[in-house]
Amino acid sequence: MHNKFAKRARSLEASDMRIILTAGERPELISFAGGLPAPELFPIEALKAASEAVLTEEGPASLQYSATEGYTPLRQKIIARMNTIGIPAELSQIMITSGSQQAIDLTGRLLLDEGDTIICESPTYLAAINAFKTYEANFVDVEMDEDGMIMEALEKRLQENPHAKFIYTIPDFQNPTGRTLSLERRKRMIELANQYDVLILEDNPYGAIRLSGTAIPPVKHFDTEGRVIYLSSFSKIFAPGLRLGWICADEVFIEKYIALKESSDMHSDGFAQRLTAKYMEQNDIEEHIKNIKIVYRKRCMTMIDCIDQYFPKTISYVKPEGGLFLWIELPAAIDARKISLECLENNVAVIPGAAFFANKAQTNTLRLNFSNTSEDRIKEGMKRIGKVLHREMDNEPTFIETVKL
Amino acid sequence: MHNKFAKRARSLEASDMRIILTAGERPELISFAGGLPAPELFPIEALKAASEAVLTEEGPASLQYSATEGYTPLRQKIIARMNTIGIPAELSQIMITSGSQQAIDLTGRLLLDEGDTIICESPTYLAAINAFKTYEANFVDVEMDEDGMIMEALEKRLQENPHAKFIYTIPDFQNPTGRTLSLERRKRMIELANQYDVLILEDNPYGAIRLSGTAIPPVKHFDTEGRVIYLSSFSKIFAPGLRLGWICADEVFIEKYIALKESSDMHSDGFAQRLTAKYMEQNDIEEHIKNIKIVYRKRCMTMIDCIDQYFPKTISYVKPEGGLFLWIELPAAIDARKISLECLENNVAVIPGAAFFANKAQTNTLRLNFSNTSEDRIKEGMKRIGKVLHREMDNEPTFIETVKL
Repeated sequence: MHNKFAKRARSLEASDMRIILTAGERPELISFAGGLPAPELFPIEALKAASEAVLTEEGPASLQYSATEGYTPLRQKIIARMNTIGIPAELSQIMITSGSQQAIDLTGRLLLDEGDTIICESPTYLAAINAFKTYEANFVDVEMDEDGMIMEALEKRLQENPHAKFIYTIPDFQNPTGRTLSLERRKRMIELANQYDVLILEDNPYGAIRLSGTAIPPVKHFDTEGRVIYLSSFSKIFAPGLRLGWICADEVFIEKYIALKESSDMHSDGFAQRLTAKYMEQNDIEEHIKNIKIVYRKRCMTMIDCIDQYFPKTISYVKPEGGLFLWIELPAAIDARKISLECLENNVAVIPGAAFFANKAQTNTLRLNFSNTSEDRIKEGMKRIGKVLHREMDNEPTFIETVKL
Repeated sequence: MHNKFAKRARSLEASDMRIILTAGERPELISFAGGLPAPELFPIEALKAASEAVLTEEGPASLQYSATEGYTPLRQKIIARMNTIGIPAELSQIMITSGSQQAIDLTGRLLLDEGDTIICESPTYLAAINAFKTYEANFVDVEMDEDGMIMEALEKRLQENPHAKFIYTIPDFQNPTGRTLSLERRKRMIELANQYDVLILEDNPYGAIRLSGTAIPPVKHFDTEGRVIYLSSFSKIFAPGLRLGWICADEVFIEKYIALKESSDMHSDGFAQRLTAKYMEQNDIEEHIKNIKIVYRKRCMTMIDCIDQYFPKTISYVKPEGGLFLWIELPAAIDARKISLECLENNVAVIPGAAFFANKAQTNTLRLNFSNTSEDRIKEGMKRIGKVLHREMDNEPTFIETVKL
């Protein structure tokens, strides 16, 4: 039946990343591979109360088909959060999505014709690359430094690609690098977008998880022409399993998004939407986020201490001010994929960074997640990775002869 | 920003149907417009117990990211149901979707390149037409009679369109016509699909809601070459708000569907999946479906009685053996859209059938939903429609001068 597949579906196959993430289900494995929040922080008891209240108070309506744009009280609570970070929004500018992954996918559907160009950070979020690839788009990479996307490089790419559809950016604690786009560059990005008449897709699922330093307003805060489409999610601040995210954009976009979402999945789970709204009514989600940040800050610091203690001095890393990830750069000659497979042999999972490059990959990079592992296990896991790195990089002979998955 | 939209998104706009469905929120309105199940039958108390049990027994895992293919215990329960209707299935052949609408959308993504041809019943499900249109597909209509798609017409279309990608069929109590494909035609459809090397997309959300007559095995039951992709849903037998459906197909398809779903929304709500599985563990869903059928049978009979009693004798209708819909054919000269707008003025909502035609519309048709309205209100609503029809069709002067929405 292979000859029946659409062009976009023909080359799809299980990636290295999928193989490593699947391995993550072995209990003896310490996994820094996924992008999972700490499940022990999920507010189970509060959700029991919220679920009971939704079913008692709202009854059948909570289980019936509902509006594609989402449950209005939840959209109102989102607006309140958006206002606190410097984005004034109206109800007509908010649509609920099935996780921000769906928001990314629907953006591809809204904006991308075959052969269209997206300008993106290099590296960038793997699942966004995959989603946009299903719309047969091309990616133009922009180099980054510690302050995120370099604006001179961005301008050059805009000049070279006058018909680029949008700039895709994850400005806060980027996945995978953990880097944050500086305040000055956010302003400059808006100027450039206006000048070169290009849209900006601001993917901001991590902004609320700032662990140190000073908050910077989102790119959309500086938007004067309605050209920033802002995406965020409840996955990192509440519960990813419920699959709830949102799009904030001008009404001209939201109207189209609603029509596209309608044919895509009708609406997101209405019970989950009411559950989330009820939780936010009965509890202070900002308190909950504070607790998440206390735990993540310790885990992040522990992981950084372990790098300093156990890893060879020839590696470098990005110290993130928030989010879930640490980005490691090994000496150029080292193949991070080989390292990750050796780590897996030693029951510790890391993701080779190459998967996060839309075009030419930097094969000497690794992404480590710190949010989903206790400090004790972080120490043990980092020790194991340190041993593998020393063995490879100190030119000791390796005793692992075959690499099995 | 209009010049930034992808080709597929440019022509999207609010349809008549959306306008009528939105009007459906007025409490004084009797709506036969949507395809909503009866909310008073949703098992609220059982869901409270299931929710408490899931959160207590499974805790954080029920709220964490989970596998794209779906929650295994739920997939196993689906397999058990599939077995009882004559489809042997393995775990590798089942993927959970965010409602069967997502299954339709992902099928477009899997199979359709721009300009590809779909062979479908005429009329057919509106939201499938819309989903496939976003993949820029063409539709070739096949005529129906009381036994569903006419096989001679299907063969002719297959001959005329040797590169058609798939036949799209809703064999049981079709939306919108309520018609059921006969046993002999199901066997013949498989023969033709094998002969002309075309896939079949069997969309079967209503099969469990048989209200009279004898059950017929699904088209996939007769599939010998793995060319039927079968879709179904919990929306009509449990709760549509949770957005849970499934795809049953050969592994070669499911592997691709998983990769496409991953970039589309990662996975469907894991809490809703566990809630549904727990409900099915703690309760007999077959008993629940029996109760649904008792209520729907009465409503369907009431609606049919009202047609006989209140409607002009020159209309015809399809008497369905199940599902949620009645299909009305008015005399050829009557514009059903005008009728539906007049009905709305009289606080009763019906959907003009024209929306359900992929190509040339039959503008003298109406779809009526009977599942979502009590018998008393069905009687009142049908009386009102009857008056409108008599006024239009008996050539009486109409007193409605302006039609406002």
